[in-house]
Amino acid sequence: EVVNFFGNYPLDRQALRRTDQSWLEAAQKNPTTKYILLSKQNAYTLPPSADNRKYSLCTYRYSQVSHLLENMSESSNQLPIVLLGSELQRNKITDTKDEDLHQSSTDVEGCVWFAIDVTTACSDEIEKLNPGAELLGSNLISLMGFDEGQAGILAQAISILSWHDRYKFCPTCGSSTVMEEAGYKRKCENEECRSLRGVHNTSYPRLDPVAIMLVIHPDGDKCLLGRKKMFPKGMYSCLAGFMEPGESIEDAVRREVKEESGIDVGLVRYHSSQPWPMPSQVMIGCHAWATSTSIVIDENELQDAKWFSRQDVFEAVTQGHRGYTERGGTGIFVPPRQAIAHQLIKTWATTSAHL
Amino acid sequence: EVVNFFGNYPLDRQALRRTDQSWLEAAQKNPTTKYILLSKQNAYTLPPSADNRKYSLCTYRYSQVSHLLENMSESSNQLPIVLLGSELQRNKITDTKDEDLHQSSTDVEGCVWFAIDVTTACSDEIEKLNPGAELLGSNLISLMGFDEGQAGILAQAISILSWHDRYKFCPTCGSSTVMEEAGYKRKCENEECRSLRGVHNTSYPRLDPVAIMLVIHPDGDKCLLGRKKMFPKGMYSCLAGFMEPGESIEDAVRREVKEESGIDVGLVRYHSSQPWPMPSQVMIGCHAWATSTSIVIDENELQDAKWFSRQDVFEAVTQGHRGYTERGGTGIFVPPRQAIAHQLIKTWATTSAHL
Ligand SMILES: Nc1ncnc2c1ncn2[C@@H]1O[C@H](COP(=O)(O)O)[C@@H](O)[C@H]1O
Ligand SMILES: Nc1ncnc2c1ncn2[C@@H]1O[C@H](COP(=O)(O)O)[C@@H](O)[C@H]1O
Ligand SMILES: [Mg+2]
Ligand SMILES: [Mg+2]
Ligand SMILES: [Mg+2]
Ligand SMILES: [Mg+2]
Ligand SMILES: [Mg+2]
Ligand SMILES: [Mg+2]
Ligand SMILES: [Zn+2]
Ligand SMILES: [Zn+2]
Repeated sequence: EVVNFFGNYPLDRQALRRTDQSWLEAAQKNPTTKYILLSKQNAYTLPPSADNRKYSLCTYRYSQVSHLLENMSESSNQLPIVLLGSELQRNKITDTKDEDLHQSSTDVEGCVWFAIDVTTACSDEIEKLNPGAELLGSNLISLMGFDEGQAGILAQAISILSWHDRYKFCPTCGSSTVMEEAGYKRKCENEECRSLRGVHNTSYPRLDPVAIMLVIHPDGDKCLLGRKKMFPKGMYSCLAGFMEPGESIEDAVRREVKEESGIDVGLVRYHSSQPWPMPSQVMIGCHAWATSTSIVIDENELQDAKWFSRQDVFEAVTQGHRGYTERGGTGIFVPPRQAIAHQLIKTWATTSAHL
Repeated sequence: EVVNFFGNYPLDRQALRRTDQSWLEAAQKNPTTKYILLSKQNAYTLPPSADNRKYSLCTYRYSQVSHLLENMSESSNQLPIVLLGSELQRNKITDTKDEDLHQSSTDVEGCVWFAIDVTTACSDEIEKLNPGAELLGSNLISLMGFDEGQAGILAQAISILSWHDRYKFCPTCGSSTVMEEAGYKRKCENEECRSLRGVHNTSYPRLDPVAIMLVIHPDGDKCLLGRKKMFPKGMYSCLAGFMEPGESIEDAVRREVKEESGIDVGLVRYHSSQPWPMPSQVMIGCHAWATSTSIVIDENELQDAKWFSRQDVFEAVTQGHRGYTERGGTGIFVPPRQAIAHQLIKTWATTSAHL
C-alpha cells in the first residue's frame, strides 16, 4: 500500500462519539485537548524550526479558545467547530511542553483534536494567542511545505470546514441549515423539508472522487503527460478528471483520457488514493494502458500533451525541480512527491518491466 | 478488470458536446434519438419478453416527446432533460424496428440518448405513448431484474435526475438554480453569489464514494459478513460505509470495519468498483485482511456480524437464494451477482490461496 502525503492520518476519527453530547462537552473542556484554527481554509501554523523543517499545526488549549466558543453558544453567528479525532495510542503526537497534562488525562484515549473556523472572529485577538503562528495558504505550493505527519489532519479540517462554508443552505428547499453531529451533518431548519424524512446525502459532507491516471504507451516504454496553461513553465503531469454519476473508476479513467487527449485506453489498474483538500476531493490513482497513440488535446483543459520516454521521465521524477533548473530549464519536471501524480509516474518510471 | 452490473455502460457520454447548443438541438430533434422517461427515479421499462428475459428501457422518439419538451420551453416548470450519450459504433444497441432510421442518420455517430424526468407531467399521457411500458421501482430488488446491457444507462439517469430533484437551490446562498450544460451543471440565479466566481462543486452533480469490503480472517480461511435489521432473513453481506473527507480508500476501509465490527484491518487491496444509483454512490470494493478476531458490532448499523468458513460462503455464493431455500432456510445466502458484495465474496470463496 502506498500512503500518499494527505493520506498520512494519525488520529482515530471517533465517529461513534459524534452524537455523544456529554463526551463531546468533556472532550472540549479537557485541558489536554488540542484546537486548531483556520481562517478561510488557511490554517494557523508554526513556521519551520530547528526541530521541524516544515510548517506544522499550531495547537491551542481550551483555556485559549474558550472565549471564542462561549461567544459561539450565545450568538446565532456560530463559529463552526468540528471534532477531528483523538490521538491513537500507538501513534501519539508528542508535544514536549505538555508532558504533565498528558499524564493527568485519564478520561480519554489520547488527546482529542478539534478544528474551529475563525474566519468571522477578530484576527488580532487570535494572533495574540500565539504571536508566532502564521496562516498557511491552502494552495498547493504552500501545502507542499507542510508537515507530512499531520497532512491528513489538515486535509480533513480544510475539507469539512469548507463544506460548512459553502453548504449553509438546504439544496432541496433553500432554507438555512444548522450543524449537527460534531460537524459531520447539517440539518435543514424547515420542518416540512423532504431532507428530514429518510437519509439524504444533502445532509452530509461532500466528497468529490477524481480519477487521476498515468497513461502508458502501447510499446510500454513511453507515457503520456500533459500540462495546463496555469502550470509553471516546464511542468508536466498526469491527466485527471472528476468521476461522473453512473460510471466505474475504470470507465472514468477511459473517458477522461479520451476527452482530454483523444487516446483510447484498455486496461486500467488501481495504484493508490489520497485525499486532496482543494477543497474536498479524493484522488483515485491508476495506471492506464493506451490502445492508440495519436494525440488530440482538448484545448479547454490542456495546453499540451505528449508521449515522453521512460528515460526522460525517470530523470524528471528522480531529479525534481532542481534537476530541471540545473539542466538550464531543458526537458521537463513533474509535481513533487506530495502529489499522487508523482507516485504514479515514479512507480512506472522506476520499474523496468511493463509494471 | 471486473465489470460489475451497473458498470456495464454502452454509451459515449459526449461530455464535450454538453456546451454545444446547436449539436444538442439537432440531436434532440433527430428521428433516431432515443428518449427514456423517469418518474420519481422509476424508469419506464418494457417487461420481460421472449427476446429478453429482463426488464429493459422503453425508448421514445422525438415525435412522441416533443410536446413534453415544448411545454418545457414555455413554462418555468421545466421538465429536467439530460444528455446521456451516444451509442458507440462498436457497441450499437440494435433495435430491429429502426433499421431504416438508422441508415438515414449521418449527422451523428450512433443514436443519441436523452433522459427526461416526467414526474410532474401527466402520467396518463405518458402511458398512452406506449401502453406496454411499466414503471420499474428504483429499489434494489426491482433493479436486479433489469437488463445487464443497459444497467449503466439506468444508473446514470437515476443519479443525475435525482440530483436535479434534490439540488434545486444553491447551497451557498439559498437562491434557486437553473440547469445548464445538458444537465451536468446547475447555476445559481443570484448574480452576487460566490458560486459564480471560480469553479465550485456546488454546481456539479454529487457523487458519494462508498468503501465496501470483504474482511478476511487472519487464518485466511474465514471471512466476516454482517447483516442489517432490514435485510431479508438469512442474508449476510459485506460491510460498507461512506468515505469521509480527508481519508484514503484504504483508511476508509479500516475505519468502517473498526466502527461496525470492532475488527482491526491491516492490508487492504482494491478489487473493483461500480456505480450504485441509490441515488448516487460509487461503490469501491476491496479485500481487507483482519489483524484481530473478536467482534463487537455497532448495534445502530448491524444486527449481527460473524466469521464464516470458506466452505459455507462458497455454498452461499454458488448456490444463491435457491440453495438457501432448498436447504430449508438453514445457513445463509448472500446478495445476488448484480451486487459488488457478491463479486468480492465470490472472488475470495472460489480462490484456494490467500487470494
Ligand atoms: N465536483 C466538481 N468540482 C469542480 N469542478 C467540476 C466538478 N465536476 C465537474 N467539474 C467540471 O470539471 C472541470 C475540470 O475537468 P476535469 O477535472 O477534467 O473533469 C471543471 O472546470 C468543472 O467544469
Ligand atoms: N453521503 C451520505 N449519504 C447518506 N448517508 C450518509 C452519507 N454520509 C454519511 N452518511 C451517514 O452514514 C450512515 C450509514 O453508515 P455507513 O454507510 O456505514 O457510513 C447513514 O445513515 C448516514 O447517517
Ligand atoms: Mg477532463
Ligand atoms: Mg471531467
Ligand atoms: Mg482534467
Ligand atoms: Mg458505518
Ligand atoms: Mg460511515
Ligand atoms: Mg455501513
Ligand atoms: Zn430543506
Ligand atoms: Zn448561490
